[in-house]
Amino acid sequence: MDIESIKDPAFLQTCSRDDMEKLAQDIRDFLIKKLSVTGGHLGPNLGVVELTLALHYLYQTPKDKIIWDVGHQAYVHKILTGRAPQFESLRKYQGLCGFPKRDESEHDVWETGHSSTSLSAAMGMAVARDIKGSSDNIAAVIGDGALTGGMALEALNHIGHEQTNLTIILNDNEMSIAPNVGALHSILGRLRTTGRYQKVKEDVEYLIKKIPAFGGRLATTAERVKDSLKYLLVSGMFFEEMGFTYLGPVDGHDMDDLLSNIQYARDTDGPVIVHVLTKKGKGYAPAENDAKGTWHGLGPYKIESGEVVKKPGPPAYSAVFSNTLQKLAQEDERIVALTAAMPGGTKLDQFGAKFPQRMFDVGIAEQHATTMAGGLAAQGMKPVFAVYSTFLQRGYDQLVHDVCRQNLNVFFAIDRAGLVGADGETHQGVFDIAYLRHLPNMKILMPKDENELQHMVYTAVQYDNGPIAVRYPRGNGLGVEMDKELKKMEIGKWEVLRDGKDATILSFSTMLPIAIEAAEALAEKNIDVRVVNARSAKPLDEGLLEELQEEGAPILTLEEAALKGSFGSAVLEHYHDAGFHHMVIERMGIPDRYIEHGSVGELYEEIGLTKDEVVSKMYTLVPRKQQRA
Amino acid sequence: MDIESIKDPAFLQTCSRDDMEKLAQDIRDFLIKKLSVTGGHLGPNLGVVELTLALHYLYQTPKDKIIWDVGHQAYVHKILTGRAPQFESLRKYQGLCGFPKRDESEHDVWETGHSSTSLSAAMGMAVARDIKGSSDNIAAVIGDGALTGGMALEALNHIGHEQTNLTIILNDNEMSIAPNVGALHSILGRLRTTGRYQKVKEDVEYLIKKIPAFGGRLATTAERVKDSLKYLLVSGMFFEEMGFTYLGPVDGHDMDDLLSNIQYARDTDGPVIVHVLTKKGKGYAPAENDAKGTWHGLGPYKIESGEVVKKPGPPAYSAVFSNTLQKLAQEDERIVALTAAMPGGTKLDQFGAKFPQRMFDVGIAEQHATTMAGGLAAQGMKPVFAVYSTFLQRGYDQLVHDVCRQNLNVFFAIDRAGLVGADGETHQGVFDIAYLRHLPNMKILMPKDENELQHMVYTAVQYDNGPIAVRYPRGNGLGVEMDKELKKMEIGKWEVLRDGKDATILSFSTMLPIAIEAAEALAEKNIDVRVVNARSAKPLDEGLLEELQEEGAPILTLEEAALKGSFGSAVLEHYHDAGFHHMVIERMGIPDRYIEHGSVGELYEEIGLTKDEVVSKMYTLVPRKQQRA
Repeated sequence: MDIESIKDPAFLQTCSRDDMEKLAQDIRDFLIKKLSVTGGHLGPNLGVVELTLALHYLYQTPKDKIIWDVGHQAYVHKILTGRAPQFESLRKYQGLCGFPKRDESEHDVWETGHSSTSLSAAMGMAVARDIKGSSDNIAAVIGDGALTGGMALEALNHIGHEQTNLTIILNDNEMSIAPNVGALHSILGRLRTTGRYQKVKEDVEYLIKKIPAFGGRLATTAERVKDSLKYLLVSGMFFEEMGFTYLGPVDGHDMDDLLSNIQYARDTDGPVIVHVLTKKGKGYAPAENDAKGTWHGLGPYKIESGEVVKKPGPPAYSAVFSNTLQKLAQEDERIVALTAAMPGGTKLDQFGAKFPQRMFDVGIAEQHATTMAGGLAAQGMKPVFAVYSTFLQRGYDQLVHDVCRQNLNVFFAIDRAGLVGADGETHQGVFDIAYLRHLPNMKILMPKDENELQHMVYTAVQYDNGPIAVRYPRGNGLGVEMDKELKKMEIGKWEVLRDGKDATILSFSTMLPIAIEAAEALAEKNIDVRVVNARSAKPLDEGLLEELQEEGAPILTLEEAALKGSFGSAVLEHYHDAGFHHMVIERMGIPDRYIEHGSVGELYEEIGLTKDEVVSKMYTLVPRKQQRA
Repeated sequence: MDIESIKDPAFLQTCSRDDMEKLAQDIRDFLIKKLSVTGGHLGPNLGVVELTLALHYLYQTPKDKIIWDVGHQAYVHKILTGRAPQFESLRKYQGLCGFPKRDESEHDVWETGHSSTSLSAAMGMAVARDIKGSSDNIAAVIGDGALTGGMALEALNHIGHEQTNLTIILNDNEMSIAPNVGALHSILGRLRTTGRYQKVKEDVEYLIKKIPAFGGRLATTAERVKDSLKYLLVSGMFFEEMGFTYLGPVDGHDMDDLLSNIQYARDTDGPVIVHVLTKKGKGYAPAENDAKGTWHGLGPYKIESGEVVKKPGPPAYSAVFSNTLQKLAQEDERIVALTAAMPGGTKLDQFGAKFPQRMFDVGIAEQHATTMAGGLAAQGMKPVFAVYSTFLQRGYDQLVHDVCRQNLNVFFAIDRAGLVGADGETHQGVFDIAYLRHLPNMKILMPKDENELQHMVYTAVQYDNGPIAVRYPRGNGLGVEMDKELKKMEIGKWEVLRDGKDATILSFSTMLPIAIEAAEALAEKNIDVRVVNARSAKPLDEGLLEELQEEGAPILTLEEAALKGSFGSAVLEHYHDAGFHHMVIERMGIPDRYIEHGSVGELYEEIGLTKDEVVSKMYTLVPRKQQRA
């Protein structure tokens, strides 16, 4: 079938079972081919081809609703809803988004990117339906990893209590981003290995009938055993306990099994969990046999060999962070590393290989990780929570209430700070300065390059007066030379990289190279601009700020973060609080809207974070008399 | 026994069981008497008298560690650790804190206030202990309500997986702040009614032995039934499934039962849950028979009659909010109210009584509530999430990622905004402006009085272009007259309450009366100050700001919120972004530290948010020539 000719999932109603199986194969071929060029989340999508076909056969979207947790597994859904022709632009600037997107299609009713949100959203939609008295069917598709997130558990609890009529598809893939963590995973493991629930149920019912009646106390127990039959059953009872009807495990690559169970779930009143077993990467050998999680999400690859196309480059910031931490942990037994299901992305997997007793993958549980780090610190350890900027948003209250309030020595290694590119608006790390800066006791640093990062990691590990955050960007360093010796930096001391008397650029960002280029261009116009590596947003370098105040020249702040409340605002606050009201200060950064996907360079252009814009801004700031005609 | 003579819990080791029971009575008498004067969390503390005695008998603090979830039930712990003489200052300025406080005692190893944090903290401490190779015993005491919080579930999952050696005391009181919500509660309910676990276990083991052996498939099932004995047991299996040893239910007012079970738990390897049944208010009839939750936390009362001392006053902001919403919900079927376990505090209980189908208490689950509200909005409803300022911190990522990013019409009614007084630093609502203001699409309003609040509620319900927050303080309104007709306000339009040309006070706070008093005092000194009810922090009133800029007089911003990143910063950003660099702008608000408990008036004095300070600040801002000698 010509995949690109699909306009709408309605055609599935006329497909035979054979047609569907053929279609599944065509979709796999399409994905393997297209993604070999664009990159993307191949593994997760190959795993849900049959599941997505079954869902779209049984749920008449957009009237019915399918909500994709995390959302990176919605490519097949995008194909079935008419977006195959756009796959060449997948995750590219102004192209197809890698996640569900309401602007793209009426079939996308809910946008995701972070994990564990789908159950709450589905419940909200189901309650709305019930109040309105309409009859749409609602399904949420959630992975086994996402189920360890606190908000998913909160929602399970509430849905079970309210007996809301909706279907949860538990997409249990044997391989998730990282090996799954937690007791829930063991329970799912037991379910996976013990076979069909219904069969066991029949057996146990038969067995119970054989139990003779007893008198007295034992009779009561026998009754209880009969009454609690549904709890008896090897492990579906975990969900049954929560108030759900449990169906499964279902073979996620068997259309018949999928269709019959999901249809039954759809037509059953109250909340139902369908436990579907899928295989990530199904149908493409390199992705199926992926022990390291490479094929979860990746760049271009060669289809035949499964060889991933790698661009050589300087070491990634994440790797420099992890390597430095490993070096320090050799000497310092207080160091304990924490990750919330991102051991690969944060490179802490390498730390864990060396120090298995001092590395914890807590699952998708940033709240727990933040406070657990606090508990470790309260007992004299030096916990290091490596976490993406947007995911730490989940730990905000724990930062406020547990770590900063008690002034505990937790080191937050904030990865993917700033624009991240292809993952787009759900993953842009542009709020962390604004949500950390108003927290008492917090310190916030950012290095200018990977060499400075290693010194900051060293400094943050030594720091013993409360919480400290070191933020660094996604991707590779600048390729600078790495010092052999680690050195302790003075926190709150900035670095003048280039001197100049006409104006000053204060950069708390990866944009220092742009600032320097701009300064060089301006020098040719006789405007001498000082460029400062303002590597601490809290505290500020008050000494340097005082020198600038005495000098009186205009200041431009530069950051890859929300303009409201971040570094530039700190500079404004500083001068006004100190009573210096006449400083000319302007700020460049991220405007007050969400920034979509694209390469970081394209996004810089879009929002005006470029050398040319810095130059233009300087023209407006520096009094004309100083400018050469 | 003279309660005030207790210095340290070590004396418990020499107490007989009779002594302990006598002591329990003395502690109850002490609490009932002291709290009748100071107020405080009487009910929760009367419920844990025996439990706290048992814990301090078995755990040698500070070497061993006891962590109190939420912490308002730690009064007995405070008494046993030598703080009885300070109870007259309970929750008063510079007096005894109503929660655990590390500065107060080496027996307080972890501070709480918000719910559901204790398991993560205890795990962190247990891991630290294991790495250090020491041998302290660690116990966390958590209520059944707190267990519905996502982070507690995340921690349960992780502790079960790691098999961390610690004890969780599940303090299951039949009456928590609000009727408990959720499937977890049903499970606990079953446990509570089915009697002792160990007894059932013996019975079932006996019963199983009677089952005849079968051949073939059934034999396997019979085996499985035997194997899964531990899952058989009516409901302890929920926790056993999670990897815990389950003990209970234990009678929380029976010293023998408590001591034997907790000792067994303490000495058992791996994680153990002791399910303790307690009665809130135990031993004081008015608090025991408390259907409405009055005795959870309250002000002074008369001991004999149990009559609560009420000060008459204007209606509370919460009540005005709820009444207005009820009025609107009569006509507008889209309105759905949500609370996270605070139906009484937010006054949504009254909404729920009238509209039971459109009111949801989700449990202690702010993350879920925020995103569920998003799901409702995505389907055309008008969800209203009423939530305390500090508790919404738990929903920060869901605000960023779900509600604001998708620009959904959710109305956040932010109660307890600003300083709250006696509950102290964990509950001061001083960060919400800073954590909301940088979120694209968000609107943030605050009324000057209860009459304006009703119009803002009406306005926010009508608003259909994305999320909107209306924040209002704890406590009573100002006693102003309430308009009969609700009217729609223009969002982003401020109100000049008093005119003046020498300077302007922009107040986004409850401090307008102070601002006006200051202006009146300044008028006597010939300084004419304009006072503006700057009732929208986002958007700002750009028209009015432009007029002020043209006038050029100094501006003072006033707010009861963190100075970093809140309303005053928005004003600074506005002028600098607009290129007006020479405005004299200063800001008054909450300094960069946590503010402890005390009356709001005392706290204002401490941090300098007073009429006199406003007057002094104005003297520094207004050029001397304008000031009368």
